[in-house]
Amino acid sequence: MSNKTKLHQEVIHANTAYKENFTKADLPIFPGRHFAILTCMDARLDPAKFAGLNEGDAHVIRNAGGRASDDAIRSLVISHKLLGTTEWFVVQHTNCGMELFNDQIMGNLLADGLHTAEFDGTLWKNPAPTSENIKPGSNEGQYIKWLTFKGLNDNVKEDVSRIKAHSLVSSAIQVYGYIYDVSTGSLIEVV
Amino acid sequence: MSNKTKLHQEVIHANTAYKENFTKADLPIFPGRHFAILTCMDARLDPAKFAGLNEGDAHVIRNAGGRASDDAIRSLVISHKLLGTTEWFVVQHTNCGMELFNDQIMGNLLADGLHTAEFDGTLWKNPAPTSENIKPGSNEGQYIKWLTFKGLNDNVKEDVSRIKAHSLVSSAIQVYGYIYDVSTGSLIEVV
Repeated sequence: MSNKTKLHQEVIHANTAYKENFTKADLPIFPGRHFAILTCMDARLDPAKFAGLNEGDAHVIRNAGGRASDDAIRSLVISHKLLGTTEWFVVQHTNCGMELFNDQIMGNLLADGLHTAEFDGTLWKNPAPTSENIKPGSNEGQYIKWLTFKGLNDNVKEDVSRIKAHSLVSSAIQVYGYIYDVSTGSLIEVV
Repeated sequence: MSNKTKLHQEVIHANTAYKENFTKADLPIFPGRHFAILTCMDARLDPAKFAGLNEGDAHVIRNAGGRASDDAIRSLVISHKLLGTTEWFVVQHTNCGMELFNDQIMGNLLADGLHTAEFDGTLWKNPAPTSENIKPGSNEGQYIKWLTFKGLNDNVKEDVSRIKAHSLVSSAIQVYGYIYDVSTGSLIEVV
């Protein structure tokens, strides 16, 4: 790490400011408000801001789509069984990238190359080859379930249902399904 | 959802305050600062605060442990291939619960019951049966890899290595490994 990028320096600089004013040294390992949020990795979402969290309040689990993946369920089960959360919010959002492609598209894009594709507002396409991006692709993308979806409202319902029906999820846990509207900052109840 | 819990009402109330002052209506789907953070779901961590993020800046992926799980890699590959991030921070943390149990312990705890276990500062044990917690357990926990670990520093290195070596991860991506110290708010460089 001798050659730091500008971004890397910015992150470390921001952390320096945070730690110099740090007042949260003695928080317990258990979430103080006994709940968890499962939401998307999307950069526009800040769960601490949109749901009013302070450090120590709640578990936050995030992945592409805010999906009830096996790994999200692994995290949620740990959250309840070992760390005492009893209410879970599943929050997916409007204008999610996961509605804009499917497994076949992603598999083909990766097979052609691993570099970032270009988005024309509707579809992603790989850029024309240059000396920079002619690195080989990989067929491994064809073997991955990318967890894309069509239909946000139904997807929230299905993911909440999957969580509730899971054999390791206690029926005592409340599971709520919400849509976050990226154009208004609102949480909209689904289930 | 007719009977809202107090917590549920608090979250919706916090969101009302957020949306009334919302100024981020026109953010693009692409992270403005072209990076992603993979970190733990732990309630004590607020990546936006400890790394200086505003809405729109960066993808944030979180799971139990901040592990380079298959699902985290799914999210990271989408982050680069479709949404243009080029630098990734893996941030695990001190006093992580994932160092305090293993697959056998978790499997046994869940087999005895799905209700929250009690922690004595070293070990989790299921509480004595009551009319509240005698719901049946499930052996399904024996079939899940919980992604616990021992040795934080080495675990960060291994997870960074797993990401870098993945067949769908471009060698053009910078992957940094850090430890977040929950007692100081500091990011400590590992790799």
